[in-house]
Amino acid sequence: MGEPLDPSSLVSDELSIIANRLRAMVVSEVPKLSSAAEYFFKMGVEGKRFRSTVLLLMSTALNITVPEPPTELQEALSTELRAMHITVPEPPTELQEALSTELRARHTTVPEPPTELQEALSTELRARQQRIAEITEMFHVASLLHDDVLDDADTRRGVGSVNREMGNKLAVLAGDFLLSRACVALASLRSTEVVSLMSRVVEHLVTGETMQMTTTSDQRFSMEYYMQKTYYKTASLISNSCKSVAVLAGHPTEVAALAYEYGKNLGLAFQLIDDVLDFTGTSASLGKGSLSDIRHGIVTAPMLFAMEEFPQLRTVVEQGLDNNPANIELALNYLGRSRGIRKTRELATKHANLAAAAIKSLPKSEDENVRKSRTALIDLTQVVITGTKKRDAPS
Amino acid sequence: MGEPLDPSSLVSDELSIIANRLRAMVVSEVPKLSSAAEYFFKMGVEGKRFRSTVLLLMSTALNITVPEPPTELQEALSTELRAMHITVPEPPTELQEALSTELRARHTTVPEPPTELQEALSTELRARQQRIAEITEMFHVASLLHDDVLDDADTRRGVGSVNREMGNKLAVLAGDFLLSRACVALASLRSTEVVSLMSRVVEHLVTGETMQMTTTSDQRFSMEYYMQKTYYKTASLISNSCKSVAVLAGHPTEVAALAYEYGKNLGLAFQLIDDVLDFTGTSASLGKGSLSDIRHGIVTAPMLFAMEEFPQLRTVVEQGLDNNPANIELALNYLGRSRGIRKTRELATKHANLAAAAIKSLPKSEDENVRKSRTALIDLTQVVITGTKKRDAPS
Repeated sequence: MGEPLDPSSLVSDELSIIANRLRAMVVSEVPKLSSAAEYFFKMGVEGKRFRSTVLLLMSTALNITVPEPPTELQEALSTELRAMHITVPEPPTELQEALSTELRARHTTVPEPPTELQEALSTELRARQQRIAEITEMFHVASLLHDDVLDDADTRRGVGSVNREMGNKLAVLAGDFLLSRACVALASLRSTEVVSLMSRVVEHLVTGETMQMTTTSDQRFSMEYYMQKTYYKTASLISNSCKSVAVLAGHPTEVAALAYEYGKNLGLAFQLIDDVLDFTGTSASLGKGSLSDIRHGIVTAPMLFAMEEFPQLRTVVEQGLDNNPANIELALNYLGRSRGIRKTRELATKHANLAAAAIKSLPKSEDENVRKSRTALIDLTQVVITGTKKRDAPS
Repeated sequence: MGEPLDPSSLVSDELSIIANRLRAMVVSEVPKLSSAAEYFFKMGVEGKRFRSTVLLLMSTALNITVPEPPTELQEALSTELRAMHITVPEPPTELQEALSTELRARHTTVPEPPTELQEALSTELRARQQRIAEITEMFHVASLLHDDVLDDADTRRGVGSVNREMGNKLAVLAGDFLLSRACVALASLRSTEVVSLMSRVVEHLVTGETMQMTTTSDQRFSMEYYMQKTYYKTASLISNSCKSVAVLAGHPTEVAALAYEYGKNLGLAFQLIDDVLDFTGTSASLGKGSLSDIRHGIVTAPMLFAMEEFPQLRTVVEQGLDNNPANIELALNYLGRSRGIRKTRELATKHANLAAAAIKSLPKSEDENVRKSRTALIDLTQVVITGTKKRDAPS
């Protein structure tokens, strides 16, 4: 594939548009609410916009002919179409066929193949897909705000957390406010399937957080429970938003399922590597990470794999590691002697490869932009597993 | 109007159905999340179900012929219709006309006027309107959960608050969970207008709460600011859900606007009386209420009116009343000498009358059930202004 390009460079202009729109979308008539809600959308504190990058690339990667543009898209366009005085000939082309009955009822005719119409449909679709990216960022930040209250966190993205700077109350309210603005934006897409997919995500974020907070002892040491929780907390948002991008474009179920599979596996790989980095930080050595999960009693994949080799490690973890340097050292010692880190990286690689395979299974396209975006999505799976920096996954 | 019947008696069976369904809707795979979310839906802690009562009565009150059943309703029914083998004759009656194009494309014919069809449409509509009541109760309880965290409240509806019993974290998550389940239920109605109306409500609840929490000194003593906050915190939910009930039935804009006006004015009257009761409790004498608003520095209508007569009262309130018995006594003294309580009751009465007038402006109907429900809605406006018990308004 030659020199891998920076996957986000393909969409950097659009990322700026989205960033500006996000700042505009969270303005409230109550100044304090605006300040709290926009806190993480401010220039320099926006995070890596990983989710938006994926969603924009996915939008282009799926920019292939679909059987029929979805009704909501046609409806969203109908005003614009009428303003263009576009008229439909007999017999209609496939695209014109897809136009609303109302439009055809006007018995109007087009002299030439309607490229303006195709352009208008494609611009409108792109705007709707960008909106999914915006909604995804709002859901993500809302969950960060509430998680930071729950964890009593002091910092986030290198600056003071909202709960610390403005108080828990405002952090809770700002999270609720972002959720409500995201729901209003979602409703404006007029796609019931997308509203369903994305509402389910909010439920998953909450479910994952609660699973983590209320584990029984057996659940805490179960790999299955860990993976389920990881799906809810991290992978559901990106997988369902990827699927939404496909649904908005009117793709058939199989294509939407591939978009979902990409997002799910990328999200799982992302979190598995994040869990490794909690132990190793940017270096490859144990104990160089923040160790924040284990200090909070959260048992992640590296430890779970290590316990398969050293069952006695479970007892150490059960005794508690917070404020217990001897136990932390002991646990890290077991982990270092085990293949826990390696197996976690292998599992992440497996999911990254599944994500790449989903992209490779998409219907073929000769379009240069489509191919570039697919390559970038595949490159991203590699960026994720070679990641060296903790990201702001909700944890 | 003779002996006023208990307005909720007309819908008590349906209230039980809704209560059962609410308990079923908040079940989660995570036990602790279920416990927290169902806390206020449990038998005996359900509150007075004031909002559900209003919405069910409104549904019946609007049970009059509409120009055309809305598309989503027809779509929701189409499976059921097909299962009935209902077939459409030529020329179609008005109701059949309204059936989906798909159905007509089947070139099927009905021998008799389709009363089953009308019944099916009306049952489906009622189920959808009940769902608005369920969503409204979920939004309401979600806002109670978060408000109790914000206020650090100890009790609610006579039992320990969720934050007190299960911790702030679970109360925040349970509120988020209810919001997400409500959004999923909302999406299932497949009505973009209703999704928009109801998402806006969540934003209003948050805005109202933040307005109360972050007032400048001038805003705190402004009647206009108080009324705006009261609309957001209390009246938006009931007014927009009343409107949603009308929109689901396919009523024209004017009828939907009357439903909205009823809810808005009823909600404002309700809150104004609640604010009086905070001073008087069940008796008519000052200081018998919980005085919780004023102790928390929240200035409500009675005080605002009193300050118009005694500007020096503002200074007393500004000095703070919490843990300051002398100042509380002084403030109550000013209030007692003023017409603050009386003017607040008058304002509540004005809004209650506006609510009743909205019902009287609805299109006439000879149907007995419709008339009974309208009478009950009008009676409710009187129940609200003669109210003697603090209710669980979010405050």
